[in-house]
Amino acid sequence: MHVLFACPHNDPADWLPGLRAELPDYRISVWDPSGPPSNADVALVWKPPAALIEHEPNLKALFNLGAGVDALLGMDLPPHIQIVRLEDAGMAVQMAEYALYALLRASRGFGRYEQDQAAGRWSPMPGLRREQWPVGVLGLGEMGGRVAQAIAAFDYPVLGWSRSPRSVEGVRTYAGADQLPEFLGRTRVLVNVLPLTPETTGMIDRRMLSQLMPGAHLINVGRGGHVNETDLLALLDEGKLEGATLDVFDVEPLPAGHPLWTHPRVHVTPHIAASTLRAEAIAQISAKIRKLARGEAISGVVTSQRGY
Amino acid sequence: MHVLFACPHNDPADWLPGLRAELPDYRISVWDPSGPPSNADVALVWKPPAALIEHEPNLKALFNLGAGVDALLGMDLPPHIQIVRLEDAGMAVQMAEYALYALLRASRGFGRYEQDQAAGRWSPMPGLRREQWPVGVLGLGEMGGRVAQAIAAFDYPVLGWSRSPRSVEGVRTYAGADQLPEFLGRTRVLVNVLPLTPETTGMIDRRMLSQLMPGAHLINVGRGGHVNETDLLALLDEGKLEGATLDVFDVEPLPAGHPLWTHPRVHVTPHIAASTLRAEAIAQISAKIRKLARGEAISGVVTSQRGY
Repeated sequence: MHVLFACPHNDPADWLPGLRAELPDYRISVWDPSGPPSNADVALVWKPPAALIEHEPNLKALFNLGAGVDALLGMDLPPHIQIVRLEDAGMAVQMAEYALYALLRASRGFGRYEQDQAAGRWSPMPGLRREQWPVGVLGLGEMGGRVAQAIAAFDYPVLGWSRSPRSVEGVRTYAGADQLPEFLGRTRVLVNVLPLTPETTGMIDRRMLSQLMPGAHLINVGRGGHVNETDLLALLDEGKLEGATLDVFDVEPLPAGHPLWTHPRVHVTPHIAASTLRAEAIAQISAKIRKLARGEAISGVVTSQRGY
Repeated sequence: MHVLFACPHNDPADWLPGLRAELPDYRISVWDPSGPPSNADVALVWKPPAALIEHEPNLKALFNLGAGVDALLGMDLPPHIQIVRLEDAGMAVQMAEYALYALLRASRGFGRYEQDQAAGRWSPMPGLRREQWPVGVLGLGEMGGRVAQAIAAFDYPVLGWSRSPRSVEGVRTYAGADQLPEFLGRTRVLVNVLPLTPETTGMIDRRMLSQLMPGAHLINVGRGGHVNETDLLALLDEGKLEGATLDVFDVEPLPAGHPLWTHPRVHVTPHIAASTLRAEAIAQISAKIRKLARGEAISGVVTSQRGY
C-alpha cells in the first residue's frame, strides 16, 4: 500500500512523522505535481487541486482531513474513487462549545454586559427564562447530535431537524421538508450544523429565517454556502432577526469591507468552530487504511448522492 | 403558622401570590417595621435590616432567598433562630453556564476574535489543546459540583478543592489546606464557588494566585469578599495572571472609577451569574415551611460554625 499526502495547504512535516509511526510498513510520500505519478493507492487530501486525480490515476480512496466534503464532491470525481470523511476526531465537542458560547452570549446577555462595562454601567438584567430560548439544531449527525445534547444539558428546550428521521435523547426531533415549518416556528436560536449539498445550498434564506420566533438568532457552524448573506443582512436590519454568530462565509476569508464585518449584531469568527485534532485524525485514518488493505469495510465513506 | 415576607429589596407583589397559592391555609404578611410585631413564626428574607429580629421576636426560622448566607451570619442572630439557605432553585446550572462561558472566552480565544472583528482581521489561531487548560474549581458543594461536571463534559481536565474530602465523577479532587498547593499548581483557570465564611474571606490573594500555572485566569462567582482585589490587579499588571472574569466585588455595585472597570483583561458582570428562579424558590420554601409545621427535619439549615 502506498499512501500519498496531497494537502497543498498543510505542512507535510506536521503530518508525516505521525503517519509513518502509525503505518511503518507502508510507503508514504508527498504529492509532487511536477514529478512523475507516484502510483499511490490512497491519498490524504484537503482542498486538493483537480489535477491530482489526472496525475495520480491509481488512487482508489481519498481521506479528507475534515468533516465537510463539499469541496471534494464539487470536483466531480470518477465513481471508482471512494471519498472518506473524517469522523469526529475531536470536532463535535468543539462545535458544541462554539454553539453554546454563542447561545449564552445572547441568552444570558453577556454581549450587553460587555457594553455596560465599557460604559462603566452596573445594570443587572432579570434572570433568564430558559423556556423563552428554545434552540433548534439543523442537522443531527455526529456534530449536530452532540451540539443538541450539550445544549439540552443546560436545560434549554432543544429541537432538532434532519432530512430523515433521527432520535436524540432529550431533543424533540423533526424530519423532512414537511416538518420544517413547525420546527422553525418553535425555534428562537437556530444552529446550523448541516453538511453542504446541492439541496442545502442557500437553504437558510429569507423564507426560512422569517419563520423563526421573534428575537431570533442564527449560529452558523456549517458552511457559508448554506446562508443567503444578503437575506440575512436585510432581516437583521428589518429587526426580524436579533443577531447572528457566523464562523463560515460564502467567501473565505471574509473579504475586507464586507458588511458582515461591521454589522453591530453580527459576530464574525474566522472558521475556527472546529479544527481537526491532528493526532486523532492520523490515528483514525491510519486504522482505516489498514482495513482497506485487508479488504474490510470502513465507516465514513461518502455516498455521493447524499453528499455527506 | 404565620409567614412573614421581609425582603426590603424585593417587591412583595412578585412573591405573595405564589406563596399564597402554595400555602393557602397559612397566614402570609409583609413585614411592616413601623407597625406592631406580627408574631410571625418564620420569615422569607433577603438582606434584612438587623431591626427585624428585635421587632419580630417570635421568629424561629429565616428562609434566605439566595444561596449565600454571609449577610445573615454577619447579623449575629440569636442561636434559636434557624437559617435556611435556598438550595439550588436553578442556580447551579446558571453558575455552570457562567463559568463555562468565561472559560471558553479565554481558552477558545473568543475575546481575541472580537478584537479581530473590530479590526476587520481574519486571523484563525491554532486549535485548542485541552490539556493546556486544566480548570480548578474551589468549592464542591451543590454549585461547585455542577460547575465542575459541566466543564468536564467538554473534555477539559477538571480538578476540585473543598475543605473536607468530596468525590465528584470525572473530577480529580483535593481537600484541606495540605492539598491546596498541589491543586493550585495544577490549575490554570481557577473558578471560585466557595461560600463566604471567616476562613474563606480574603483567601484568594497574592499568595494563592501566585501558585497557579502560567497564563492563569480567575473566574469569581463566589463572593467579592473572597478576593483581595488589590493583589489581583497587581498580579494582572505583573503578567502573572492572564485575565479575570468577575461577577462579584468587595463593594457592589462596583464603584465608579474602580480600576477593575477599565482593566483591559478583566471582565466585569453585575452579580448576575446565578439569580434565584422565583417559582422554584417559592415551591422549595413552601414545602419546607410545611415540614417545619409538622415538626419534620428539613435540608439546607445552616450550621453557623461552618458558615454555609
